[in-house]
Amino acid sequence: MKKLWGGRFSKSAEEWVDEFGASISFDQELVLEDIEGSIAHVTMLSKCGIISEAEASQIKNGLEQLKEKAAYDELSFSVKLEDIHMNLESYLTELVGPVGGKLHTARSRNDQVATDMHLYLRKQVQIIIELIEEMQLALLEQAAANIETLMPGYTHLQRAQPISFSHHLMAYFWMLERDKERFAESVKRINVSPLGAGALAGTTFPIDRHLSAELLGFEGIYENSLDAVSDRDFILEFLSGSSILMMHLSRLSEEFILWSSQEFKFIDLDDSFATGSSIMPQKKNPDMAELIRGKTGRVYGDLMGLLTVLKGLPLAYNKDMQEDKEGMFDTVKTVTGSLKIFAGMIRTMTVNKNQMEKATKTDFSNATELADYLSSKGIPFREAHEIVGKLVLTCVNKGCYLADLSLEEFVEAHPLFEKDIYEVLDPATAVKRRDSAGGTGFEQIMIAIKKAKDLMAKK
Amino acid sequence: MKKLWGGRFSKSAEEWVDEFGASISFDQELVLEDIEGSIAHVTMLSKCGIISEAEASQIKNGLEQLKEKAAYDELSFSVKLEDIHMNLESYLTELVGPVGGKLHTARSRNDQVATDMHLYLRKQVQIIIELIEEMQLALLEQAAANIETLMPGYTHLQRAQPISFSHHLMAYFWMLERDKERFAESVKRINVSPLGAGALAGTTFPIDRHLSAELLGFEGIYENSLDAVSDRDFILEFLSGSSILMMHLSRLSEEFILWSSQEFKFIDLDDSFATGSSIMPQKKNPDMAELIRGKTGRVYGDLMGLLTVLKGLPLAYNKDMQEDKEGMFDTVKTVTGSLKIFAGMIRTMTVNKNQMEKATKTDFSNATELADYLSSKGIPFREAHEIVGKLVLTCVNKGCYLADLSLEEFVEAHPLFEKDIYEVLDPATAVKRRDSAGGTGFEQIMIAIKKAKDLMAKK
Amino acid sequence: MKKLWGGRFSKSAEEWVDEFGASISFDQELVLEDIEGSIAHVTMLSKCGIISEAEASQIKNGLEQLKEKAAYDELSFSVKLEDIHMNLESYLTELVGPVGGKLHTARSRNDQVATDMHLYLRKQVQIIIELIEEMQLALLEQAAANIETLMPGYTHLQRAQPISFSHHLMAYFWMLERDKERFAESVKRINVSPLGAGALAGTTFPIDRHLSAELLGFEGIYENSLDAVSDRDFILEFLSGSSILMMHLSRLSEEFILWSSQEFKFIDLDDSFATGSSIMPQKKNPDMAELIRGKTGRVYGDLMGLLTVLKGLPLAYNKDMQEDKEGMFDTVKTVTGSLKIFAGMIRTMTVNKNQMEKATKTDFSNATELADYLSSKGIPFREAHEIVGKLVLTCVNKGCYLADLSLEEFVEAHPLFEKDIYEVLDPATAVKRRDSAGGTGFEQIMIAIKKAKDLMAKK
Amino acid sequence: MKKLWGGRFSKSAEEWVDEFGASISFDQELVLEDIEGSIAHVTMLSKCGIISEAEASQIKNGLEQLKEKAAYDELSFSVKLEDIHMNLESYLTELVGPVGGKLHTARSRNDQVATDMHLYLRKQVQIIIELIEEMQLALLEQAAANIETLMPGYTHLQRAQPISFSHHLMAYFWMLERDKERFAESVKRINVSPLGAGALAGTTFPIDRHLSAELLGFEGIYENSLDAVSDRDFILEFLSGSSILMMHLSRLSEEFILWSSQEFKFIDLDDSFATGSSIMPQKKNPDMAELIRGKTGRVYGDLMGLLTVLKGLPLAYNKDMQEDKEGMFDTVKTVTGSLKIFAGMIRTMTVNKNQMEKATKTDFSNATELADYLSSKGIPFREAHEIVGKLVLTCVNKGCYLADLSLEEFVEAHPLFEKDIYEVLDPATAVKRRDSAGGTGFEQIMIAIKKAKDLMAKK
Repeated sequence: MKKLWGGRFSKSAEEWVDEFGASISFDQELVLEDIEGSIAHVTMLSKCGIISEAEASQIKNGLEQLKEKAAYDELSFSVKLEDIHMNLESYLTELVGPVGGKLHTARSRNDQVATDMHLYLRKQVQIIIELIEEMQLALLEQAAANIETLMPGYTHLQRAQPISFSHHLMAYFWMLERDKERFAESVKRINVSPLGAGALAGTTFPIDRHLSAELLGFEGIYENSLDAVSDRDFILEFLSGSSILMMHLSRLSEEFILWSSQEFKFIDLDDSFATGSSIMPQKKNPDMAELIRGKTGRVYGDLMGLLTVLKGLPLAYNKDMQEDKEGMFDTVKTVTGSLKIFAGMIRTMTVNKNQMEKATKTDFSNATELADYLSSKGIPFREAHEIVGKLVLTCVNKGCYLADLSLEEFVEAHPLFEKDIYEVLDPATAVKRRDSAGGTGFEQIMIAIKKAKDLMAKK
Repeated sequence: MKKLWGGRFSKSAEEWVDEFGASISFDQELVLEDIEGSIAHVTMLSKCGIISEAEASQIKNGLEQLKEKAAYDELSFSVKLEDIHMNLESYLTELVGPVGGKLHTARSRNDQVATDMHLYLRKQVQIIIELIEEMQLALLEQAAANIETLMPGYTHLQRAQPISFSHHLMAYFWMLERDKERFAESVKRINVSPLGAGALAGTTFPIDRHLSAELLGFEGIYENSLDAVSDRDFILEFLSGSSILMMHLSRLSEEFILWSSQEFKFIDLDDSFATGSSIMPQKKNPDMAELIRGKTGRVYGDLMGLLTVLKGLPLAYNKDMQEDKEGMFDTVKTVTGSLKIFAGMIRTMTVNKNQMEKATKTDFSNATELADYLSSKGIPFREAHEIVGKLVLTCVNKGCYLADLSLEEFVEAHPLFEKDIYEVLDPATAVKRRDSAGGTGFEQIMIAIKKAKDLMAKK
Repeated sequence: MKKLWGGRFSKSAEEWVDEFGASISFDQELVLEDIEGSIAHVTMLSKCGIISEAEASQIKNGLEQLKEKAAYDELSFSVKLEDIHMNLESYLTELVGPVGGKLHTARSRNDQVATDMHLYLRKQVQIIIELIEEMQLALLEQAAANIETLMPGYTHLQRAQPISFSHHLMAYFWMLERDKERFAESVKRINVSPLGAGALAGTTFPIDRHLSAELLGFEGIYENSLDAVSDRDFILEFLSGSSILMMHLSRLSEEFILWSSQEFKFIDLDDSFATGSSIMPQKKNPDMAELIRGKTGRVYGDLMGLLTVLKGLPLAYNKDMQEDKEGMFDTVKTVTGSLKIFAGMIRTMTVNKNQMEKATKTDFSNATELADYLSSKGIPFREAHEIVGKLVLTCVNKGCYLADLSLEEFVEAHPLFEKDIYEVLDPATAVKRRDSAGGTGFEQIMIAIKKAKDLMAKK
Repeated sequence: MKKLWGGRFSKSAEEWVDEFGASISFDQELVLEDIEGSIAHVTMLSKCGIISEAEASQIKNGLEQLKEKAAYDELSFSVKLEDIHMNLESYLTELVGPVGGKLHTARSRNDQVATDMHLYLRKQVQIIIELIEEMQLALLEQAAANIETLMPGYTHLQRAQPISFSHHLMAYFWMLERDKERFAESVKRINVSPLGAGALAGTTFPIDRHLSAELLGFEGIYENSLDAVSDRDFILEFLSGSSILMMHLSRLSEEFILWSSQEFKFIDLDDSFATGSSIMPQKKNPDMAELIRGKTGRVYGDLMGLLTVLKGLPLAYNKDMQEDKEGMFDTVKTVTGSLKIFAGMIRTMTVNKNQMEKATKTDFSNATELADYLSSKGIPFREAHEIVGKLVLTCVNKGCYLADLSLEEFVEAHPLFEKDIYEVLDPATAVKRRDSAGGTGFEQIMIAIKKAKDLMAKK
């Protein structure tokens, strides 16, 4: 089949070059957006008297037929026709005859493909926001059920202070809240119409860009035609937001993997989210958490890829920019899949409360309590810290924990210690007493869960 | 000097390990923020009755003295004391005696350093926003002075359609506007107080986190203490926003470099922003533009670095996170410097209007006009495109341009061509007629400049 | 169909989780390598008496049948069976009955997949090395044909000194030579057998790892079983080497794009490697060069992706490592395609010798000659440089070039100038006189081309 | 002070632009290499009769003085003089008068700085190779001392099969061996002289590049002058190799952090490599391991940074390339520091053998033994796997381990089980029996350690 832009050329390109340059193998993902954009464009053309109503009606009729076929996956595409735009236009001309050629009036592939991308990402970001909320709800559910579940809190992967498991889960709730905020804010820059920018400079036809924008649900139009066709910021912003989100998921993945280990045994993942080994019959591997941790890499890679593509490109459109799509599709798929999996994993996991609580009693994570105890009796914190450090060393040498020391031993270390010290050393007391705003104290957690639920209800 | 946390340890660390682990060589950048945070913290402690007013007053007095010394660069710091927090505390204790130890009550280095970072970045982002506006103003100035300056518009670095130089510059105005928007929105997530989150779990002291937040000008507090000490999203968001900004600057750099070449000669950079060669006496190199294009790499690298650091880290604080600072400082320095340079480069450059305009007349960038001409007379665009493609080939073979063809030749190609075709082929007409919204038409440019000026005036 | 590792599990995984975790959609690329590896494994098992010869023969027979089907693309794979290993084993058992189950004796998927990857990459790297040589030959061809083709040499994209076009092309020859070297050296670390490492610890069966390695053409075996199953260095090394190669191609792409512009007009790319515009009939875009420049981003991204995946992973195999494949396949495809395209582009391009040579005469790139002239007469170079700088400024102000100045003007600038200065200023003289080793002097170029040809002949 | 290339310019650059463009703040790291290169250059110049022996002697005398001052850190540098080359030349001229200006004959800053970088990296790579060997020796030491120390081997962070701790450590030995190999091979491409390539095209002076190369210990010269000044592959290759190395260290870091946790307690890091908490007196944090894991990010970032810088740069030198240095210096510092720390950490750590061995007895990591047992009695492996999977489930439900089941229970599961099954289930037996080449069997480990020691002895 003849190339649509073939007039200028005396030689036909070889097939393998075509394949290297063609985008149809991946940009067919945009088939519905491309048709949607064309319908709006042709409607506008006729409203502005650039083509007749009869012509518009014929073209739209053809496009609607294509849309239905696309929805049922009944269109097949050809590498010879390079991209989704040319493939669809060719189908259209088959259906409606030469009038189909008028669809491209006052439009270039440059503004057309940009329009498709904006429509596509607007939809995907909405879906991602909803999936984030699903995962937040799953976290909230487990958090509400585990307010009094004690566990060691860690810094440097060393037990630091006892906390509530609910508090730990809620940390991720707020991370996701920020992710959602970022995606929501980015919509402002996605939901802008490049349609009508032409190849780069606008068009001589008396088009109405606001009309086509409105028909497509865009909130505004690009103010500059060069910018409209060469801007890919909105994809970069999406990839950045997705990288940060995946980073959060990688952290929770790491924790699920640790907690599922024989050493921690804090949780059991449901069998649906774990797999076995082809050689070791006892294995139950937290595969999904590992995979999501790993997939963080590909999203970082997609971001770095597009940043590299755009570095140093002069205005306006350059073919390099065809490389904006596959990374975006890949990230959409990765992020939506990961969020779905995580919501399920969280909802179905078993929390081993006893195991967690046991852990809080067999370590020195209550040492801060001692220091705070002395400090609240007037000892400068640094001095209190030092005294307690020595008590810990004593225990380590004796092979016991702080609660195992006798009152005499405490008093010997500092005369201000009294009998109530044992109550203070109890992990539950320690958690409860961390009642500062945003702290792990039970009261605070209940306030936080309430706040979070209200926030979710508002949406 | 003894380590402040040395009680638990029986052996002193060797010096080179200390150096490897210490952050004082770079986190001294945060000296003022650290003091500011401490003043707010100690004020809150006394308001809440945790320390006495007298103690607070002594400590604050000491901190104010340190602040003044810091402002005059009169403090020197020691690797032995690891970081800026310990260095300052040690100075404080020297100044005010053991009461200085009370400053650390109800605070950990984990929430302290997070507070410093938030204060620091809040200030820097504000400066960056102002510098973006400086550069936007410089662009507006040149744009206003070059509305009727014609130049070839490019796609694929091939001349595509004639445009106004003003229109080209304004494309960058809108890119920067988005950059500004992103930075401005990020402030919401920067301007939140982690202070009072303690090591990870909150504190048992009856602190008032809202008070210290207010004293520091924060708009709110972190809702979760684990999140407060382990969140570095705000830095990632800053690095992402900076990467996109630098990508924009790299594109304009590329264009300045092209335009300064002997082949284009569209602009002359002022001598202040160019340098010579040690060996070639005739050289005037666009060094600053090249350097900024290159520095894009370091900002991308800073982003990738921190994304890597955070991947897969369990909660809460881990020492890995000390690696969040140098990249951030480096990016702040790079971005602020690049914006300053660019504002100057734009303002002082000479625009070679004649050279640009000449270029529009010696190529085929008016070919689209012909196709639009036929198309507006009812020829389907695809057919018109093909006809014009052949006319271009005719010219190439004859060694002339389109305006050089005779009317007969035009009519032979298609009977609908008439005498007015020569007017249509004039680049100025071509530009003028691209009067669609956001297009390069002179009217549109004036509207756009007006809009942009109003936007700037509002701030 | 039942999962092969299902014994331990009481619940069946839902389909969408399966799909997320399955690798069959991409690891089917390894189908031939997987069969090849199995044939070697089973041969070894029977030679070591672990299974009987009859059993081995049955299994091999089945594997050979699968191999033929795979070669004709007649196998279809199922997500339910997760990966290529399980899919093939299931086919095998269908073909040969329960004895097929013995294939997995003394082997785990961990060493099996590692073996597949080594076999795959060994083959691909060989292909890439050959394609690099193709491109080198294309460069050599054009270099040999353009020894006396003069062009401006650039630094900072400013004309610096006249050079031979041949010399410029040969710079890329040597870059590619280093790329080839790196790939060739990496084979040493690819061509090592992990087979027999088991899941992580080796096996209790009396296997002979050297035998299976030999059957597969490996030069040695991994010395440590944990390392064998968790090493992905060889892929990282491949991605690094590919990133550097793509960086080279991106530089040549940039130059081809510049040289194809109306401003430079140094070359014309063949129509087979250029495309047109859907809206601008005159355009002939260097699409392939742009696309390859853009594809640099995806290879960088693949590298960054895998580096991220592996960061911080404990030994031995983790599911994250499943993410090692798609990036590798993508890079293989990108690199091989780009090299093929480039070899063709170089061979078929038209070099506009006149245009290039004209450029060398209308600038100041001969200024260094003047400085060298003075310097060779005993003037310290720095002083000479200054004198010539002033002469250039004189010309710029007068609107002429150096060769246009009168002898009087030269002598006035410095009395050591003599009549032979005009000869010195001729670009051809300038090129010829740069006769230092590796310089652009014609003699040197001929030596270099000879050396390069000898190098290629040796392979 | 006047710029050395100032002749062409009518206006002096403002200070802040100077600072932005100057490299002296970091390239002073190259002071010794720059002097070394100049000494070789001037020696060559006089041997070739380009300058007189007297002049050369004067210049060399000056350079030697500067070298001594530099060694004692007695030189201070100025931003006004841009870079290390200009600063040194200015010092030289102060010392020896105008003859100093002759040093720059037949040399450009482009080939000069490239020479410096090659000299610098050649030295640093040698140091890094030695430090890798130090770390390998530390691993070998611990491996030799822990051959019979049993520990659980992990896949998916689930206990998989018991292994020897020695075997685990040795996996890292071989990773480092590959790192060393890569660095050693890269020397071939580092140790090549660009000196004499001039600005880009060679020089008209009758220099002898082979002589200056030989004086500097280079093994050869760049064959192409354009390539010589624009090649930064050798730095990219260094950064890639360093990224892979840091990835290895990040994996061992992760394991040290896990093993130091209260949950694992497999090792105790020496106090010198751990730090405490300012608030929690009991904490002993594996700070150095965390920091190194984190520093992996900065090295990845340095790599990504330079890859970005070089993407799409036309030949030859561009100012962007000034950005090649800081990342390289940073990576050198990071890698050398990390290796030193690790060697110390490994040598001084305490291995808790009892704790490790206990872990091997309280899990199902001996399940594979059962499957192998049945398989060796003729049961197809897949069937054996399934039988054992069910036995594990029985144990999980009963709350016991496999060795706790009665012989009746085993026989009920499969009649081929016999009394010797209890011996088979013992972790020590399991380890010992994995006697395949490269496996964890004690014999194999001793062979591997011997091989490794021989390898180290050879160097």
